[in-house]
Amino acid sequence: MLVLDKLKEYIKDNKDDIVSDLRSLIKHPSVSAQGIGIDECAGTLNSIMRDAGLESRIIRIENGNPIVYGEVKGKKGSKTILFYSHYDVQPAEPLDAWRYNPFSGIVTDDKIYGRGSADSKGNVIAIVKAIKAMLELYDELPVNVKVLIEGEEEISSINLPAFVEKNKDMLNADACVCFDGSLNPSGSPNIFAGLKGLLYVELRCKTAMVDMHSSLAPLVHNAAWVLVKALNSIKKDGKIAIPNWYDDVKVPSKKDLDLLDGIDYDLESIKSSYGVKEFIGDAKGKTALKRLLFEPTCNIAGIYSGYVAGGSKTVLPSEAYAKIDFRLVYDQNPDILLNKLKKYLKEEGYDNIDVIKLGSVEPSKTDPSESIVICTQDAAKKVYGKEPTLFPNSWASGPDYVFTKILKIPSVWTGCSPANANIHAPNEFTSISNVLDGICYVSSIIHEFSMHK
Amino acid sequence: MLVLDKLKEYIKDNKDDIVSDLRSLIKHPSVSAQGIGIDECAGTLNSIMRDAGLESRIIRIENGNPIVYGEVKGKKGSKTILFYSHYDVQPAEPLDAWRYNPFSGIVTDDKIYGRGSADSKGNVIAIVKAIKAMLELYDELPVNVKVLIEGEEEISSINLPAFVEKNKDMLNADACVCFDGSLNPSGSPNIFAGLKGLLYVELRCKTAMVDMHSSLAPLVHNAAWVLVKALNSIKKDGKIAIPNWYDDVKVPSKKDLDLLDGIDYDLESIKSSYGVKEFIGDAKGKTALKRLLFEPTCNIAGIYSGYVAGGSKTVLPSEAYAKIDFRLVYDQNPDILLNKLKKYLKEEGYDNIDVIKLGSVEPSKTDPSESIVICTQDAAKKVYGKEPTLFPNSWASGPDYVFTKILKIPSVWTGCSPANANIHAPNEFTSISNVLDGICYVSSIIHEFSMHK
Repeated sequence: MLVLDKLKEYIKDNKDDIVSDLRSLIKHPSVSAQGIGIDECAGTLNSIMRDAGLESRIIRIENGNPIVYGEVKGKKGSKTILFYSHYDVQPAEPLDAWRYNPFSGIVTDDKIYGRGSADSKGNVIAIVKAIKAMLELYDELPVNVKVLIEGEEEISSINLPAFVEKNKDMLNADACVCFDGSLNPSGSPNIFAGLKGLLYVELRCKTAMVDMHSSLAPLVHNAAWVLVKALNSIKKDGKIAIPNWYDDVKVPSKKDLDLLDGIDYDLESIKSSYGVKEFIGDAKGKTALKRLLFEPTCNIAGIYSGYVAGGSKTVLPSEAYAKIDFRLVYDQNPDILLNKLKKYLKEEGYDNIDVIKLGSVEPSKTDPSESIVICTQDAAKKVYGKEPTLFPNSWASGPDYVFTKILKIPSVWTGCSPANANIHAPNEFTSISNVLDGICYVSSIIHEFSMHK
Repeated sequence: MLVLDKLKEYIKDNKDDIVSDLRSLIKHPSVSAQGIGIDECAGTLNSIMRDAGLESRIIRIENGNPIVYGEVKGKKGSKTILFYSHYDVQPAEPLDAWRYNPFSGIVTDDKIYGRGSADSKGNVIAIVKAIKAMLELYDELPVNVKVLIEGEEEISSINLPAFVEKNKDMLNADACVCFDGSLNPSGSPNIFAGLKGLLYVELRCKTAMVDMHSSLAPLVHNAAWVLVKALNSIKKDGKIAIPNWYDDVKVPSKKDLDLLDGIDYDLESIKSSYGVKEFIGDAKGKTALKRLLFEPTCNIAGIYSGYVAGGSKTVLPSEAYAKIDFRLVYDQNPDILLNKLKKYLKEEGYDNIDVIKLGSVEPSKTDPSESIVICTQDAAKKVYGKEPTLFPNSWASGPDYVFTKILKIPSVWTGCSPANANIHAPNEFTSISNVLDGICYVSSIIHEFSMHK
């Protein structure tokens, strides 16, 4: 029987050790996009996990960043829960926008600043220290616990699907908790019973060998124009116009919609935070929320062609580039959609546009009435003293599908990082009290899951 | 009576002086976009013009680059011809692509390398040395000659229209020769009886205060998408779709079309030079040439938004930019068209796009049966031994309209620089023999014009 007060006392007594270990993780950059400090961070994490009582090891990945994996056997015959998170971080650039060195882990009052402090080293520490606390307080865990911390989440978890595929037996569990999330502004965790997928492509258009003087515009195809026309043909009236794009969309279910109905989430704050006048189609309330959670998107993340410096230059560009991220919803498949996109552009006559896939993630969905979803909700309510927000789906993407589709187990996505923690931006921070609460949250999830039939 | 043989002998005797003066002009960078070496070049040019026998002076322009202006009175009661060219040059960047220092004026065999050697210092020297030669050989010119060399041609001749407007009496002439052109690959000059106009704008779209995570794409307007949609609405089926855009198009005339019929110009070489597979709409022969000369264009010179570096970033851009040059044909007016563009975008609902005018030039047209056109053709034929190519209109733009519309005199656009001289590109050069032929060409134009009724 988990006694929260006893746990809180333990945490209070061990606060310095917890903070110190989080700071040592932050001090190793572990920027996966730049390959900086990866092995050092994995090594330190492995030590912290072993110190916590996990049978932990570093698993090398060919041409990839190591995975740190550990297990603790629980009470005999008990269920198994798998925790997932990541130790790699986004690049810290632009460096001069940081108040402190992003890899110093500096502490000011309750805050620890640093790249990766909230996303997701604070979450990682919460998982590991929860296990340590439970082992020290109760000698034994009520369930078997497996912990998988990868080093490539910020670069689309390139090697994770193959790793999970290859290690199904080792990773086998009754449920998965992806602990890589944040609280909402009211101070209670967001819990997601599904994540969007992603197909990230670059369109590269080439119409000639070199740029030309724009006086030739009556005769020569301009790569920027060709790309603009092609992009325009992809999206019409706010919908993706590629034939059969929506064929495999299988959400929202009736349960998802019921859940959505009960969510009180302030989307209007997005407008003031970002200086947005109105949403697309002037969507409001539940309509806006439904779109956010369940609409497949086609987003131009970048476009570039010709002369973009100051003043004017009369050039006819021979090359043009666009980066597009398509967010997918269950059960769209990125590779099938990639082929549809390629086929469509070919059929529309865009022979001079190459489509390069830069990454993909499959969408993932878990039934919100699954045991792990209910246990996570219950744990959150007990630890944070208020109802968490359970979303039937997230508007963001993550590698959740490796658990739901490859391991074929239910999975929730949650975490303990503060809301508005400048994730992926300068001056990222986490708060010490949030990490300490996270330890209680993880312990409670384990406890609730052991109790739930 | 101009005797070409006598002139050629004079040129041979004075070749060193001619080349030396051209090199000293090249050694002064005179990059108008960067404000480097402007005054030095104007000063040197003024000395060269005075040495040639012109009453020459430097005319300062408020907030602009000086104009070098000179006159020679001809035989009493004779006609007046005005020569126009420019001493400023394009930026030399990228510097590391140059074989030699772009401001050294290095001579290798018949070539002089340097930024501005062909565009248009070689042409300037041809004008000035032709006057010097004729004065030294014949003591007097057969017509009054005025020479206007500006220092802002490469930055859209910003101050030229106001200058010409203010100095109509001083500049008054019977005809103008804009000597800022090149030979065609067969070695005979191109002559243009008209130039396209230009309206250069930047579209700036802003949909929010800051960039966002692309997971918000179902709700928040993406500036790149808004810009792509707006651009697409401007051009449909190859035509500019802005209402009444073509209202003021008054070319080609019957004479223009007759002239076009007789032109044998190898447009196909554009394809091989630039690696272009086929022209827009697979245009060929006279159809292609007619389009090139008389079609108003809407060219995307540059477009930029969001993340354009390596790899992928899931960002929803809040800002997007496009640079567009519209080429105009006689008698479209850039300011009227700018208003039509602004009005159209507003009516189409693009309130979040600002249209910034970066520059404009009016189109210009001279009747191909004008005396100055015929005299220039005759001069070219005599000097180069073959028919020049007379185009009823150019596909490029230039400030010709200040002469045809403000001074209201006929004007031709021609010159003596070599074909394929890497104008506006690294390793620009001119050839000494072309400059020397240019001296004969200018002298011949003056002579023919004095003879023609």
